This record gives sequence, C-alpha cells and structure tokens, in this order.
Amino acid sequence: MHRDLEAEMEKAGVDTLVVLGDSTRESPNLLYLVGAWLPRGGIYVKRVGQKPLLIVGEVDLEAAKRGKVGNVKTFDELGYSELVAKMDPTKARAAVVESVLRELGAKKVLISGKVEAQVAISLAGYLRRRGFRVATKIGVVERARMTKDSEEVEKIAEAGRATERAISEAIEVLRDASNREGKLSVEGRELTVGDLKQVIISCLAREGLKPIDEPIVAVGEASHDPHYPGYSEEVVRANKPIIIDVFPRRLDGYCFDCTRTVVVGRADKRLRELFEDVLEAQQIAMDMAREGVRASKVARKVCEFFEKRGHRTPLTKGAEPLREGFVHSVGHGVGLTIEEPPYISTVSKNVLRSGMVATIEPGLYYRGVGGVRLEDVVVVEKGGVRNLSKLEKALEL
Amino acid sequence: MHRDLEAEMEKAGVDTLVVLGDSTRESPNLLYLVGAWLPRGGIYVKRVGQKPLLIVGEVDLEAAKRGKVGNVKTFDELGYSELVAKMDPTKARAAVVESVLRELGAKKVLISGKVEAQVAISLAGYLRRRGFRVATKIGVVERARMTKDSEEVEKIAEAGRATERAISEAIEVLRDASNREGKLSVEGRELTVGDLKQVIISCLAREGLKPIDEPIVAVGEASHDPHYPGYSEEVVRANKPIIIDVFPRRLDGYCFDCTRTVVVGRADKRLRELFEDVLEAQQIAMDMAREGVRASKVARKVCEFFEKRGHRTPLTKGAEPLREGFVHSVGHGVGLTIEEPPYISTVSKNVLRSGMVATIEPGLYYRGVGGVRLEDVVVVEKGGVRNLSKLEKALEL
Repeated sequence: MHRDLEAEMEKAGVDTLVVLGDSTRESPNLLYLVGAWLPRGGIYVKRVGQKPLLIVGEVDLEAAKRGKVGNVKTFDELGYSELVAKMDPTKARAAVVESVLRELGAKKVLISGKVEAQVAISLAGYLRRRGFRVATKIGVVERARMTKDSEEVEKIAEAGRATERAISEAIEVLRDASNREGKLSVEGRELTVGDLKQVIISCLAREGLKPIDEPIVAVGEASHDPHYPGYSEEVVRANKPIIIDVFPRRLDGYCFDCTRTVVVGRADKRLRELFEDVLEAQQIAMDMAREGVRASKVARKVCEFFEKRGHRTPLTKGAEPLREGFVHSVGHGVGLTIEEPPYISTVSKNVLRSGMVATIEPGLYYRGVGGVRLEDVVVVEKGGVRNLSKLEKALEL
Repeated sequence: MHRDLEAEMEKAGVDTLVVLGDSTRESPNLLYLVGAWLPRGGIYVKRVGQKPLLIVGEVDLEAAKRGKVGNVKTFDELGYSELVAKMDPTKARAAVVESVLRELGAKKVLISGKVEAQVAISLAGYLRRRGFRVATKIGVVERARMTKDSEEVEKIAEAGRATERAISEAIEVLRDASNREGKLSVEGRELTVGDLKQVIISCLAREGLKPIDEPIVAVGEASHDPHYPGYSEEVVRANKPIIIDVFPRRLDGYCFDCTRTVVVGRADKRLRELFEDVLEAQQIAMDMAREGVRASKVARKVCEFFEKRGHRTPLTKGAEPLREGFVHSVGHGVGLTIEEPPYISTVSKNVLRSGMVATIEPGLYYRGVGGVRLEDVVVVEKGGVRNLSKLEKALEL
C-alpha cells in the first residue's frame, strides 16, 4: 500500500525516489504514485519524510492536480524551456531533476518507472556525474504496490464483474449454438474462435475495459498448450475443451484475469477427471492461502495434490522438460498489471499478506486431450482469502 | 528502415545492441526488431556485421521463430536455470547477456527497449563492472524506425481504413440523430459524448484494433482546449463543433491517428472561417512536404499562413503563453507508436525522408468558439507526400 513506500525506500537505503514515465498508461509505478491519467507522463520525486512533487507539462497540469500528489509543478516553472534552448531534451530534463534533487537535499537516489532504457541509463549517469549516489535496487515501488487498499480492491472487483460479463456472453453464444454431429453453428454459419473473441472484445469495450492482449480462446486438443492463443479462423466443436482466458484493464489501470474451461455437449471421462482435479486443486489453494503463509507452500500443496492424482508438476523429479500435467505456476499478483508479485509458485519468495490480490489458476494439460484451467482472483485476508470471482464453474454447458 | 540499423549503430559508436522488453506490446523497439508478438518479451542482441540473436522463454520459442530473427535461443539453453538457482533473476539475466556478449566479442554496448528503469540501470552497471563500455545515446533504434518500408506502410494504411470506419460510424450516428432546437437525440434519448465514444470503441474492437487511449470527442466550446478528452455524460448539441480524434493500434503494433471536426446543422461564420483556414493550412503543409525538406520549414510555413490570417502561432512573438490560435505542432511520426519522430514543429531537427510516415494536423482554438482540427497521415515520398487518409473533410453534416 501507499503507506509502505517510505519503509521500502528506507529498506533500500535511498533517501529520494524519482519515478519516470512517458505516460501513466505505460508506467505502472508512475500511475500508482500519481493516481491520475497523464497521457504524456511526468516525473514524480519524493524525499523520505516529505510530501512528493510531480512535474508535468503545462497541458497536463489540470489532470495532474486531480490526482494524489498535492504539489504539482510544470517543467517550464522549473526552467525547462530555458534549458532546452541550450541542450538536448533528455539532458534538459535531467537538469530539471537535478535542481529538484538539490532543493530536497537528496543524496542517494532510486530511479524507477517504465521508460526507454537509454533514458534511465542516461539520467543515472548524469546524476552520478553531478555527485549523487544512484541505487540499483529492484522492486521498491513494486513492493509497496503488492498489497492493495480497499479502494484498489473495489476497482479490481469491478474490473472482475465486467470481465465475467464478457466471458458469460461468450458462453451464452456457445449455449445457443446449434450442435449437429459435433459441429456448432450460429445462424447457419460455423462458429469460430474469432466469433467468440469478437463477443468478448465488444463486451469489454462496452464495459469500458481494454484487453491487455487478445483474449485466449483455445479450443480442442490445441488447448494442451497453455499459451496457445487460439486463431480466429479455427472452428469451435462440441464435446471438446474450450478454454476462455480474459485479462482486461480499466481506463484507470486496474486489471482482472479470469479463466473458465467449458465443453458444449459431453466431455469425455478423461476431461471430466481433469476438470475435477483442477477444481479440487483450486479449492485446496484457496483453503490454505491466508496472511502469513508462504506462497511457495501453497504452490507445493497444489503440486502434491496433483502428483497424488498422477499428474506431473514443477515438483516432479525428472530430467525431461515439463510439457504435460501441471506445467505452470499457481498464480500471480493482479493490480495495475497482471504480471506482478506475489507470485504463487514453488520457487516464490513471497509471503502472503493481507491486501494482496492474486490469481489462483491451476491447470492440467495433455496432448491428445487438451487443457483445463480455472482462474479466480482472490484477496488475501487475515483468516483466509476472499474470492473476487463470482462466475460459476461448470464443465458441460 | 531495418537496413538503417547498422549505420545508426556505427554512428553511435557501438558495436553491439541489446534490446529489452517485458513484452513486445510494451517495448516498441523490441517489437520492431523481433517482428513477432511475444507477450513475455525477450532479449535481442545484435553485433554489427552479424545476424541478430533473440533470447526468449521456452513457451515463446515457437512464436519467436515466426518473427524476423532467424537465430532464437531459450534462456535455459543459455544456462539461465542454473544461474537463477544461485542468484536473483535480474542478475541471472544479466549474466546470460554477458555470456552472449563475450561470445560475440562485444566491447561497446548500447542497451535499448522500454523496461523498468531499475532493470536498465542494473544491467548497465553489471556490464560496466564486467569490463564492457555501455553507451548512453538516445534514439539509435528509433532513428532506424523513422522510415517505413512498404510492408509497414501497408499495415499503417490498413489501420487507417479501420480507424476511418470507426469515425464514419460516429458521424452516421450524428447524421441520423434528430435535431430539435439544437438538441440532438437518438431513439428519444439525448445523444451524449459517451454514446459516440461507444460507437467508435465498438467499431475498433470489431476491426481488431485497440484504442491506445480513449478517443477524443470534444464537443462545444470546451473543444477550444486541444487536450480536452470529452466526458461520457456530456450532451452533444447541434450547430457547435465536434472534434473526433481516434488513435488505435493493431495487434501487430501499427497505429493510426485521425481527426475530423464536424457540426450537425449550421456552423456560425467564425467557425466556418476557422475550418477553411485549417483546411488550407493542411494543404499548404502537404504541398510542401517531400524528401529533403526540413520538418521545421513545413511547420514555419503553416505558422506564417495562420499569422497572415490573424491567428497566433508558436512563431508569434510575445510573452504570454500561447492559449488561443494554433497552439500545437503540425504533426508527429506514426508507426509502432504515435509519439515518435519525425516531429513536424518549428523546433524540429528532423529532415523529411522517403518512407517517413507522419500526421499533418493543423488546428485552431478559441475560447467562446471551440476548436477545429483536421488530421491526416501521410507517407513522405521523393516528390511529395501520399495521403493515407481517405475520409472526407466537410464541416457541416
């Protein structure tokens, strides 16, 4: 949470934080600290024990003031336009940062934010030449972001409701499709993966969400590869697995991630068993996860359960690469991105804490059969987890 | 173009390029060089005079091989899993990069790609400690990206056709709205900015494009601020300016950017004059732009024309900030982003070259009146420009 930032800075041994971004959309750390949508980004500077300063362009001043940082200045107020007449824009920006750091009495600085590597490396070099110490510590802002306050959880939950409506609409299309000897059609036309993706994407658009990447609609045996995205022209068939994995982002940046596996008609015995195992594994993880528990312990418990059921997992000893069974991790954090800590895997170093939001998404994958994955998003609390996903889990439609 | 990369590396005095990205979606330089959609990114390494190498995770190997780089290796092939057992992941990745650089005989390295600043700064520091020289030169890959080959131009043009369909659909809604004493309604309900944005976003979704940010639908006098996004609940009125600015991205990364200004019913005399001036300014810029011409010269010509018509511009002498008249630049490059060179402004250092793709988007803005902006995307050719925008320009519907 925001209030953890100072402690994380102190743990990293830095007195001042500089967070960059060409836009808040592209720099989650900047978006997190600024709390406003700045299409042209800005520079956030915070000295331990003091209120932060945000520097933006003149055109973004009003938008910036609606955010979390009370003290907003424009680049021009800090002398940028005089500087840029004498030097290139990157150096002029560095000089503005330098003058702010001097004013604050900064000594050891941490630079963060997602920017072109050259911008970060140049700024670090410039500040070092001007006498500052520049830290290299991964994850300071990210660690503060790891636990969410109730307002953030509510935004993620809202993203979840919209995401689930999109998946539900796709499932409705599947339910309504006519099934003739395993061939599914809608209005006389064969149903394709592209049709289902279109329903999902259009629903997300209506809900004000943007897909982070194209949703996964993996149908048939190809779904044995958890990273198979599904291609538009593929035809959807009855009695075969359909994995629908949707991960959109709200305009304020908060994300969701939800997966359901369904079959139109009848699933064969093997697939039904896989589904039952995945469902049980998910419940085991949810029952175990709570404040104070190591994420790796949750992942190990899931692996042990899967092994007992005869599936290979990341824990299974053996030389060959793991290509069948439970081939990925149990989950990952969800917030302003869907690729953030806590990581729920056997090698994770994260300990679960109240306010963490993460997916619980066990899956099983077999060539010749296909895949089953069920993915919910939970909030870690003192005595357990609260599930933000409400969408039902039933294999056969 | 791709073939300019070696020359740009040599100009920058580096023998090896390392390009990072957590995903190709988020790192345009990586996407450009790799030419494949890698949701988990990778590391691209190129020594001058040699074919490049791409390092990806096992799960992305197949996707990576469909791209432009022939030589693809996985992190594990390069010893990553042994390294990460002994050190943290960031250092293990740096060690993999180091071993590749040694193999290539690299001495002076340029690190590029959009990543968390700490990742770039750490890698630079690590490589320096291991005896490499690490350059700080902005824009090496970006300069190669500045000119587009015919395949890229075709992708941008296709993005353009889809973008224009989205704007046309919004204009159709405006045309069909019933107009009673200046109040526009559709099916008995007042027409809002949100309705128009929804039509645009849904059309883009159907066309397989993602809005980079919410489209601008600035209505009425508020449109005098070129950065006013328009808010959903605002009611659209007849006889007032409506600026529609849509800038989406295809799934392969290529973008477009198009703006039209329309009025339902009758525009008053002042607004019609502004529209005529903007239209003429755009034609002046298009007539002048061609290979070999300085972008700043094009921008100055537009400013001089506007000044002759009585509008203030960035060229106008005077102390007060420029808040009315022609308050922004003439255009910017369009490719894998919409915020790239060439910049067509009075302070631009870019010279137009064949294959550059850029917007030409003059606008005029006045309090109490509103704004007019017309934005097309053109390809620079030897004897002039080719306009990729086909959408008609007419003020009154």
